[in-house]
Amino acid sequence: MPGRLRAHPLELPLQVVLIEPEIPQNTGNIARLCAATASPLHLVGPLGFRIDEKAVRRAGLDYWHLVDLHRHVSLSHFQHACPGANLFLFSAHAPRSYLEAPIGPGDALVFGRESVGLPAELLAAHAPRVFAVPTLGAVRSLNLANSVGIVLFEALRRLGAMNQTFVD
Amino acid sequence: MPGRLRAHPLELPLQVVLIEPEIPQNTGNIARLCAATASPLHLVGPLGFRIDEKAVRRAGLDYWHLVDLHRHVSLSHFQHACPGANLFLFSAHAPRSYLEAPIGPGDALVFGRESVGLPAELLAAHAPRVFAVPTLGAVRSLNLANSVGIVLFEALRRLGAMNQTFVD
Repeated sequence: MPGRLRAHPLELPLQVVLIEPEIPQNTGNIARLCAATASPLHLVGPLGFRIDEKAVRRAGLDYWHLVDLHRHVSLSHFQHACPGANLFLFSAHAPRSYLEAPIGPGDALVFGRESVGLPAELLAAHAPRVFAVPTLGAVRSLNLANSVGIVLFEALRRLGAMNQTFVD
Repeated sequence: MPGRLRAHPLELPLQVVLIEPEIPQNTGNIARLCAATASPLHLVGPLGFRIDEKAVRRAGLDYWHLVDLHRHVSLSHFQHACPGANLFLFSAHAPRSYLEAPIGPGDALVFGRESVGLPAELLAAHAPRVFAVPTLGAVRSLNLANSVGIVLFEALRRLGAMNQTFVD
């Protein structure tokens, strides 16, 4: 069996920010995405589960210890910790597509709760920086972990992170 | 609350093909992705779960009935049913990135089992059409549903399916 296809991580990684995630299996999958792309993961506010709950570990397999994991009381605490990160907020109700989001190295991709998304006041405060992954079919929303994966890999693609690949 | 960001489906949709999927929650998430992108879903060979199992329905939420779902005994049965679909196979062990895959309208995105991927003989028979989603971090593989979402939305992007969006 040959090795796996790999690329070098960004020098300034993208920051993945989840605000009050509710479903441990989603956070586990997102943790795996983050560890697979060398992207720090920031969990903000109260969680809908215990961070050491079996389901997180199961969804994240053996990968939890490989995640660069940070906890913050609020989004402003995150901003204080990562002052260089421009925020990009994702909501199904945004008027602009994620393909138009001018994401740069070191920027933050911010996602809300599975049930209700990001708080309205946060979306209003950052309106020019809110984007959506469009849907085209009968179902009008995506699983949170899938949304994070789609946005994260599109940003990595656009930043050229996968231009040079190698088998290892 | 404004509507959701939408785009029109492709006239010739992409076909998502899962060969012997093992984990019902992944298939449920992929079913949701397919229903959200108007992409038919083809399940090939024996499944590692009952198609009506609670976990599929739970992962796919209320969306299972919105999926254009097909069952096939083997990949050649799928090819007989969809003769116009060029096959693109995805494996972590491919030497080329999914960004290089010349996917066209109506083509098929083929994924293997969570544990072992696609059978070696299938990969050998289609070697020029095998591609990988590269990883950049300490973790060297992605969740199956995340891989499908990343490849599917990249193909939709490249085919221009999200060039015109609207809020609905």
